[in-house]
Amino acid sequence: MSVKICTFGELVVEFLAKEQNQRFDQDGEFLGPFPSGAPAIFADQVAKLGFPVVFFSCVGKDAFGRMCIKRLEKDGVIIDGITSHSKANTGSTFVTYKGMNERDFIFNIPNSACGLLSFNHINEKLLKNCTHLHVMGSSLYSFRAIDAMRKALDIIKGSGGTISFDPNLRKEMFDIQEMEQSFDYIMEYTDIFLPSENEVSYFAHNIGESEPQIMYGLLKKGIKHIVVKKGAQGANYYGYDKYHNYQMIHMDGYMTNAIDPTGAGDCFDATFVSLLLAGYSVKKALQYANASGALAVSKIGPMEGTPTLAEIEAFLSKVTLK
Amino acid sequence: MSVKICTFGELVVEFLAKEQNQRFDQDGEFLGPFPSGAPAIFADQVAKLGFPVVFFSCVGKDAFGRMCIKRLEKDGVIIDGITSHSKANTGSTFVTYKGMNERDFIFNIPNSACGLLSFNHINEKLLKNCTHLHVMGSSLYSFRAIDAMRKALDIIKGSGGTISFDPNLRKEMFDIQEMEQSFDYIMEYTDIFLPSENEVSYFAHNIGESEPQIMYGLLKKGIKHIVVKKGAQGANYYGYDKYHNYQMIHMDGYMTNAIDPTGAGDCFDATFVSLLLAGYSVKKALQYANASGALAVSKIGPMEGTPTLAEIEAFLSKVTLK
Repeated sequence: MSVKICTFGELVVEFLAKEQNQRFDQDGEFLGPFPSGAPAIFADQVAKLGFPVVFFSCVGKDAFGRMCIKRLEKDGVIIDGITSHSKANTGSTFVTYKGMNERDFIFNIPNSACGLLSFNHINEKLLKNCTHLHVMGSSLYSFRAIDAMRKALDIIKGSGGTISFDPNLRKEMFDIQEMEQSFDYIMEYTDIFLPSENEVSYFAHNIGESEPQIMYGLLKKGIKHIVVKKGAQGANYYGYDKYHNYQMIHMDGYMTNAIDPTGAGDCFDATFVSLLLAGYSVKKALQYANASGALAVSKIGPMEGTPTLAEIEAFLSKVTLK
Repeated sequence: MSVKICTFGELVVEFLAKEQNQRFDQDGEFLGPFPSGAPAIFADQVAKLGFPVVFFSCVGKDAFGRMCIKRLEKDGVIIDGITSHSKANTGSTFVTYKGMNERDFIFNIPNSACGLLSFNHINEKLLKNCTHLHVMGSSLYSFRAIDAMRKALDIIKGSGGTISFDPNLRKEMFDIQEMEQSFDYIMEYTDIFLPSENEVSYFAHNIGESEPQIMYGLLKKGIKHIVVKKGAQGANYYGYDKYHNYQMIHMDGYMTNAIDPTGAGDCFDATFVSLLLAGYSVKKALQYANASGALAVSKIGPMEGTPTLAEIEAFLSKVTLK
C-alpha cells in the first residue's frame, strides 16, 4: 500500500527572539517571519521525504499567508486544502528561548485565520487514497477544529487508514478546554502515539507511574506504536515484538549544534510515521527520525531545516552515535 | 474649565521592520514589541503633556498586554478603562517602510483583544468630568467598537463636551465596511477635525475640489477647527478669525532626523487638542503640535518619542524654523 498522509491545523508565521532570555514585555529584536505551525512543519517534512501529503489549514489574505503557502507548495505539500480567508489575518507565534530546553510562546492562533478551519474545509476528494491522518494536539484549539479533525478521522478510519497523534502540549494553550477534552477522544483511535518526554506524566492513570508503566497501559488500550521523544537523548519506542510481546527499544539521538529547537519534534514525527508506513523497520525509522530532528534544529526557523531523505542519509553516514 | 480628555480603541504591540523595503513575505529582522495603537499613542502624549486622559481598550492576558498597560500607567494615562481579556490575545501590527513617506502594515486588530472593546466597556464613572472625546478612525474597526464610540460620544456631548476626529485611514483597513459608514456619523459631531493631507480628498464633495474648498465646506457644516497635517511641511489650519470670518493659517514644521514616522500624527493630534482646550492660541497649539510630531519621529517605536511640555519647549527654543 502506497503511503499518502494528511494532516490539518495551524499554518502561521513565527517570530523568534534574537537573544536568549529575551523578554516579551521589553523591546528587542525578532527574526522572522518564518512559516510555522506544528502540523505545517510535519507536512513540510513528509513532503521533503518524498511522500504525498495533504494539508488542511486557513491563512489570511495577506503577505504572511502567501509566504506560508508558497513555501509549502515549493516543498511539495499538496496545498489545495489551504483556504485564504478575508475575515481574519494569518496567525502568528512569538518564541523566546530561556536556555535551550525552555521556551516561552505567544500564540495568535485561535482568533486568527487558522482558527476558522472547520468541518467544511475537510474536502473528501482531497482525502481520496489517503492512508494516514496525523493529529497535532496543538491543532485542537477550538470546537471548529475538533469538528474538522473528527471528519478527517472518520474518513481515514472508514477507509482502513491509520492515525498518529502528537499531544504537542503547550502551557500557553492549557486554558483551551476543548483541547483537553478532545485528547481522550483522539487517543481511542490512535495507532501511533508520539509524546515528548515531558508530556508522559499527563497520560498517567495513577500518580507516580513510571514511563514504561504508562506506556504499557496505553498499549493495552490498543495503541500499536509509541515513541517517547527525548530530543538529543533520542527516543524510547514501546510496541510489540514479532512474538507479540511488549518491547521497549531505546535509540540514541545525535549531538548537533542546536540553534533553534522549534520544529524538531514535528520533523521527528513526520519522519518516523512516513518511514514506518513505508515499510522501514522500527529501528531504522527511529534512527532516521532522530536524524531528522537533529538536522531540523541546526537552522534558524522552524521549517528551515526540514531535511530530504538524501540529507538524512548523508548525515547518518557521517555522524558518530552519542 | 479644566481639560480632561478621553479616547478609546486599539492598544497593540508593534513590530518594525529593521530595513527599509523589507518584505513581509521574506524572513528578516524586526524591532519590538513596542506599545502602539493610534489612540494609545494619543493618550500617552496627552498624559505626557500633563493633562488627565482616560483610555478605553482591551488587551489579552499576556506579556504584550501587560507591557502596554504598564507603559501607559507609567506615563500617567488613567488605565482603569483597559480590560485584560482571556478570550483573545493582545493585538499586533507589523510595519515596514518603503522610503520615509510610504509604509506597509499588517494589522492583527479586529480579531485580537482590542476587537472585543464594546459598549459595556465604556464606564460612565470613568467619563465623569471628561470634557473632550478624541476619535481615531482606525479604532472604528467593528460594529462593537462603533457602538462603544457612540456611547462615549453621547455622554461627552450630553455634558457639553467637545469631539475631535482624526480619520487615520489605512489602506489595509479599507475593507472594513463599518469603518466607512461610521465616518459620516462622527463628522456630524466633530468640533476639531484632524486629517492628514493625503486624506483630504476622501472628504471632498465634488471631484477636483481643492483643499481650501473642501475645508471651508466642512466648516460650513459645523466643524469649528480643522488642521490638515503635512508632516515635516507643517500644518494648515482652517477656522474662524475673531470677526467670525474664515481664516487659514499655515504653520511650518520642523526638519528633524525622522527615524520612525509612525505615531507623529497621533502626537500632533494630542498636543494640538490638549493645548487648544487648555486655552493656548491656535498658532501656539499648532507650533507645539508640529514640535511634538517632530520629536515623536526622532525615536524608534511609535510611543517612544512622546515629549513632555518641557521637552517641546526646549526643542522650540533651539530649532530654526524651516
